[in-house]
Amino acid sequence: MDDLYAVSWHEGKVRLLDQTKLPHELVLLQISDYKYVVSSIKNLAVRGAPAIGIAAAFGVVLSVWDADESDRAGFLGRANTAIEELKASRPTAKNLFWALEKMRKTMSQNLSRPLHDVKKAMLKQAHDILQDDIDRCKKIGAHGQELLPFRSTVLTHCNAGALATGGHGTALGIVRSAIERGKKIKVFADETRPLMQGARLTTFELMDDDIDVTLITDNMAAYAMKKGLIDVIVVGADRIARNGDVANKIGTYGLSILAKEHKIPFVVAAPLSTFDADLASGDDIPIEERHPDEVRKIGDTFIAPDDVPVFNPAFDVTPHTFISAIVSEKGVVRFPNEEKLADWLK
Amino acid sequence: MDDLYAVSWHEGKVRLLDQTKLPHELVLLQISDYKYVVSSIKNLAVRGAPAIGIAAAFGVVLSVWDADESDRAGFLGRANTAIEELKASRPTAKNLFWALEKMRKTMSQNLSRPLHDVKKAMLKQAHDILQDDIDRCKKIGAHGQELLPFRSTVLTHCNAGALATGGHGTALGIVRSAIERGKKIKVFADETRPLMQGARLTTFELMDDDIDVTLITDNMAAYAMKKGLIDVIVVGADRIARNGDVANKIGTYGLSILAKEHKIPFVVAAPLSTFDADLASGDDIPIEERHPDEVRKIGDTFIAPDDVPVFNPAFDVTPHTFISAIVSEKGVVRFPNEEKLADWLK
Repeated sequence: MDDLYAVSWHEGKVRLLDQTKLPHELVLLQISDYKYVVSSIKNLAVRGAPAIGIAAAFGVVLSVWDADESDRAGFLGRANTAIEELKASRPTAKNLFWALEKMRKTMSQNLSRPLHDVKKAMLKQAHDILQDDIDRCKKIGAHGQELLPFRSTVLTHCNAGALATGGHGTALGIVRSAIERGKKIKVFADETRPLMQGARLTTFELMDDDIDVTLITDNMAAYAMKKGLIDVIVVGADRIARNGDVANKIGTYGLSILAKEHKIPFVVAAPLSTFDADLASGDDIPIEERHPDEVRKIGDTFIAPDDVPVFNPAFDVTPHTFISAIVSEKGVVRFPNEEKLADWLK
Repeated sequence: MDDLYAVSWHEGKVRLLDQTKLPHELVLLQISDYKYVVSSIKNLAVRGAPAIGIAAAFGVVLSVWDADESDRAGFLGRANTAIEELKASRPTAKNLFWALEKMRKTMSQNLSRPLHDVKKAMLKQAHDILQDDIDRCKKIGAHGQELLPFRSTVLTHCNAGALATGGHGTALGIVRSAIERGKKIKVFADETRPLMQGARLTTFELMDDDIDVTLITDNMAAYAMKKGLIDVIVVGADRIARNGDVANKIGTYGLSILAKEHKIPFVVAAPLSTFDADLASGDDIPIEERHPDEVRKIGDTFIAPDDVPVFNPAFDVTPHTFISAIVSEKGVVRFPNEEKLADWLK
């Protein structure tokens, strides 16, 4: 995965690897209008909390890239409109709001300078968000890999890998870092219905790196645990409340219960940009509900009656009491709670 | 579902409703060679433990239907070969072996009679197995519906409905019987990867009967429970050991853990033909592993890398200690164990 990035900037354009087409087609979207960044976030061409934040940051740059450099009001209007539309693209992942706030701040701090320089400062900020995210993932990997036994099998859910971040990954970053240090790590990947990020993306990026991966359907996880096939569970996060409650891809909460039953460590990996210091607990995290056809269909094919009623929450919340450890770029907090996490949120 | 049967006999032929084509195509297979019954069981055109038993019974009849009525050795040879091949078609469901044993017994008990009469006795036995199964399901429904509150929502997994049985269904028989008695019952259906029996079959047969059904992916069950959307979980069974351990569709074991965590009753519904008095516990139940492409593909479409390694167990075992009640045609056993179930297995 050294040559495939979820998000990059190339000569005035945002490049997104279209993740709806993986693993069977490698399609690079080359985007010059921020509105396509908005729709790419909505339709999941780019997904994964950190990657969404990075894409949104470059989206803000796009919105002013061709702006008239003598029209300050117009420039501001374009940027603010883009920020609002990007903010409304998805409700759950914290990193989106975090990245947009960084972009807004950079713009306002530079607004007394010539607009050409404001643009440059904003582009630099977006690049910094991207590069920072890779650095954070590497640190998460370094800290988190200590939690993996020398020879062990990690179960992961959804895709918290290079494709979900600037690079390296959060949950999969821990796997990569452990392997870089010579550990013998295998991965079991939940396919992660409805949108199959595990089957399509996690297997793809691990196979690309020659990491031993076995695909299961989500409902096989309990049986795999009972058979002793799983040593550690590692997942990413879309938003983490002050007390350590974690919103992540639907199915994560159920996995945490299965982990508790089988006494398997349940580890969450996320950069600090995922933490929401404004929320006391996970009860306050908004959970996106998506279109029923995501459940009724796979790809273009209906697998259920076309008009069957559907409940389609995209995320769930895992209480901090079910979590063995949270790993960020700052280190590892075992059995997280508000007190233990307070240092990270200062 | 009064006009759609999973298995029926029609003028010397076995009719199977091809369940691999549901819900979008209603295809009736008309079979005159028992070998197609074997392949139809293997490829899941007919599935569900009781329905497999019924199909196998008629399959044995087919194997001798055109047999020379003066060649006793040839007749016996044909029947025994068919029984062996049918027995090897799938390993987990007990009802298959139970029904074949009934057919073998009927044949041997009648073998002193003219072969024409043996054929007729075997056909009558197969019809009895079918009709008995419907009667048993009605009794299971009558007993089991008492476990459902007047206004309640049942979560079910896979398809333990009319399509999995002679008619009426086991788990869904309980729902149907409750509704016949005026109760207000809604159903949540797990889609049940990999083969989508919940999405394709449970929704289809409940919508056909105007029963309120909502489809979810398997990994949404925990979140639905946490939100208070589920009052009771009711599932079928493929084999039940003497102590009450239950083999059922993969994912059932995980659901039972989620039920325990949320303090939701977990009910198993099955006719006595599903019980295996020879097995002390579920540890001895053979678990079928099926082809990796069932996980890699949905329908004809690969949703994962074509060569990704896969683990694909078709069933799992739920310990009796996780089960609130088992319902059979004989009644309800709460918190089942070997002692409490002994009466049923005499």
